[in-house]
Amino acid sequence: MSAGWFRRRFLPGEPLPAPRPPGPHASPVPYRRPRFLRGSSSSPGAADASRRPDSRPVRSPARGRTLPWNAGYAEIINAEKSEFNEDQAACGKLCIRRCEFGAEEEWLTLCPEEFLTGHYWALFDGHGGPAAAILAANTLHSCLRRQLEAVVEGLVATQPPMHLNGRCICPSDPQFVEEKGIRAEDLVIGALESAFQECDEVIGRELEASGQMGGCTALVAVSLQGKLYMANAGDSRAILVRRDEIRPLSFEFTPETERQRIQQLAFVYPELLAGEFTRLEFPRRLKGDDLGQKVLFRDHHMSGWSYKRVEKSDLKYPLIHGQGRQARLLGTLAVSRGLGDHQLRVLDTNIQLKPFLLSVPQVAWLVRSFLPGNQEDPHRFSKLAQMLIHSTQGKEDSLTEEGQVSYDDVSVFVIPLHSQGQESSDH
Amino acid sequence: MSAGWFRRRFLPGEPLPAPRPPGPHASPVPYRRPRFLRGSSSSPGAADASRRPDSRPVRSPARGRTLPWNAGYAEIINAEKSEFNEDQAACGKLCIRRCEFGAEEEWLTLCPEEFLTGHYWALFDGHGGPAAAILAANTLHSCLRRQLEAVVEGLVATQPPMHLNGRCICPSDPQFVEEKGIRAEDLVIGALESAFQECDEVIGRELEASGQMGGCTALVAVSLQGKLYMANAGDSRAILVRRDEIRPLSFEFTPETERQRIQQLAFVYPELLAGEFTRLEFPRRLKGDDLGQKVLFRDHHMSGWSYKRVEKSDLKYPLIHGQGRQARLLGTLAVSRGLGDHQLRVLDTNIQLKPFLLSVPQVAWLVRSFLPGNQEDPHRFSKLAQMLIHSTQGKEDSLTEEGQVSYDDVSVFVIPLHSQGQESSDH
Repeated sequence: MSAGWFRRRFLPGEPLPAPRPPGPHASPVPYRRPRFLRGSSSSPGAADASRRPDSRPVRSPARGRTLPWNAGYAEIINAEKSEFNEDQAACGKLCIRRCEFGAEEEWLTLCPEEFLTGHYWALFDGHGGPAAAILAANTLHSCLRRQLEAVVEGLVATQPPMHLNGRCICPSDPQFVEEKGIRAEDLVIGALESAFQECDEVIGRELEASGQMGGCTALVAVSLQGKLYMANAGDSRAILVRRDEIRPLSFEFTPETERQRIQQLAFVYPELLAGEFTRLEFPRRLKGDDLGQKVLFRDHHMSGWSYKRVEKSDLKYPLIHGQGRQARLLGTLAVSRGLGDHQLRVLDTNIQLKPFLLSVPQVAWLVRSFLPGNQEDPHRFSKLAQMLIHSTQGKEDSLTEEGQVSYDDVSVFVIPLHSQGQESSDH
Repeated sequence: MSAGWFRRRFLPGEPLPAPRPPGPHASPVPYRRPRFLRGSSSSPGAADASRRPDSRPVRSPARGRTLPWNAGYAEIINAEKSEFNEDQAACGKLCIRRCEFGAEEEWLTLCPEEFLTGHYWALFDGHGGPAAAILAANTLHSCLRRQLEAVVEGLVATQPPMHLNGRCICPSDPQFVEEKGIRAEDLVIGALESAFQECDEVIGRELEASGQMGGCTALVAVSLQGKLYMANAGDSRAILVRRDEIRPLSFEFTPETERQRIQQLAFVYPELLAGEFTRLEFPRRLKGDDLGQKVLFRDHHMSGWSYKRVEKSDLKYPLIHGQGRQARLLGTLAVSRGLGDHQLRVLDTNIQLKPFLLSVPQVAWLVRSFLPGNQEDPHRFSKLAQMLIHSTQGKEDSLTEEGQVSYDDVSVFVIPLHSQGQESSDH
């Protein structure tokens, strides 16, 4: 998959844009419908162009060209999003150096050149301003590279050793590792998980230092050693398209899908709700007339439903309220995982959202697959990305069912999974 | 499925047996290998017999005969387990009366006779003495019946109403219920979840009052309104056997499968470990020689693995230790969900296990299926149950792979899923 959506990243030290105040985040900025370059599908130059606010077209990096970061293997459709858009993206080559734990107990770079090479694509859907999404687009890949370099010896071993330096303290160490079923892929998954945590901490520090706010979801694809990894914290979606199958590669984390975890936390720490919210879920918000009635509800221990008699405290605003894409955590946030939001509070209160949020991604991996057929048109992936975005907006070539139109920002990466031969001939 | 394992239940008020002290529960009582009646598979009478400690065979209730409780549709293979065995079971007809919320704000029984009829089968695998398993076998079905009776009006409606008494406070209430996708099945699931919670509270009170201890897993099958529900809290297994498919109907909850939840709790509440345990998982328990080395580990936010440099605190006993069936929570317990264990502490310490345990079952439901073929032998289900138990013990007619032999108590329910016609002709 590729042909995608792409944002220029901010350079280190470059000032971040001023934040917008947080608030209900369904559509925290006035909606401006993204405009596509008409006819771009028949004009390769246009499809490769990124539009900046001043409308000067900027040439994309050449296809397959390797830049230090945030470039490489992507074609660009920007849909006139500004540099300060809450949707951000990054992609590029992942160059992992080989390091070794030296005798001096210091990390020595044995090979300053790349030792392992992978590819990285990431989408960040921001809220409460673009600051967190921009920081994530600038930071997460560095965290990941660092995490991978710290375990690279284990990555290239037949089986990750119990001790990174290869010493064997206990003769049956390989057996212990085997019994736990630990494979090299688990080190990549662990590196992704730790990179998300690290990036979240960086965002927390940077935004606090600069007096800014905001958060973002993160959806990351990594191709490494012939395998594709998807790491998702938020409500973006990755799908694998094969000739006769469409397979979801990510699970969305929203207040609705993580209801039991969030209610459980409020059950254990009722003080997090400051007496302003009810932990319980009802089909709709209750009102005075419901008092004393037995109504449908569910609590943290229930995947099913039951009835309870309505008490006064049940009339409070629900911890999770709304349905589907409209569901909000504490009336504020539509996602339950992501990066940032360290300072986010419910409007006009001191109630924090961060305790309910996780920066832990769910990681799925699969052996790299190959895209069949239709190899003639060099812009086929751009066209597909464009068609997918159009379809969410109810355009003529729409794929979407009637009524399923989005008024939010929409970003798409299409990443073609080539065979080894195709890949090397491309580069 | 049926032909099963069955325990006489204790009558209300009957004294419970004295408990054994808790301890490492791999095999907390001296192992006594269950003996089957040889040749019982060719002798229907023997296969139907329950052996009591005094070895007098007791006739099982007639097949299909309906007793008020704990009887009905089961054939019995007891394998000479005593009445005080840690494995307990219960099965019977589930008679749900119709109640209504009257004008006097009291629950009135409209129909003292049964209104809905279902069937119930349950297995309880005890530890630290049989007390909790016996209480669960005597109590859980009553809790479930009470929970179902409290929502029975919703169960028989086309769609559960927002208000149990059918009043409509808000004109779009049916729409809210529909948007949430709430079906009658969700009320059964909610009733099962609440019944487990209620039963756990009863066990806690009863054992405390009588100075007893112990806990048990619970695996419950309920057949109601043409659907089969499986509720599981613990490490017993339910499988659905079809002509060309074997499908697991339950997921096992062990310290290993619930590692992240348990580590997360210890991360949030480090005081639960009293400085005696380490939250982190390593492939084996670390020792002095590992100090300063970088070894494989994972923490609560990781499904993958990474390396960390070993510090002194990492040498503590792990929160979860061991592999597969040997994995123990706090060195003590092999399951992470179940009923009871309110007083259980790590041996010679004041460290409680209950905060890490959930009594919340996972509930799965499916439309009732039908068992094909082989309808000649009336004891075919007994024989199957017997064969399954033999196979876990490496007997001649074993189905188990080489080396897969259990020395623990083993209990099996085989519950045939009949078609409607078959069922009514049986009754």
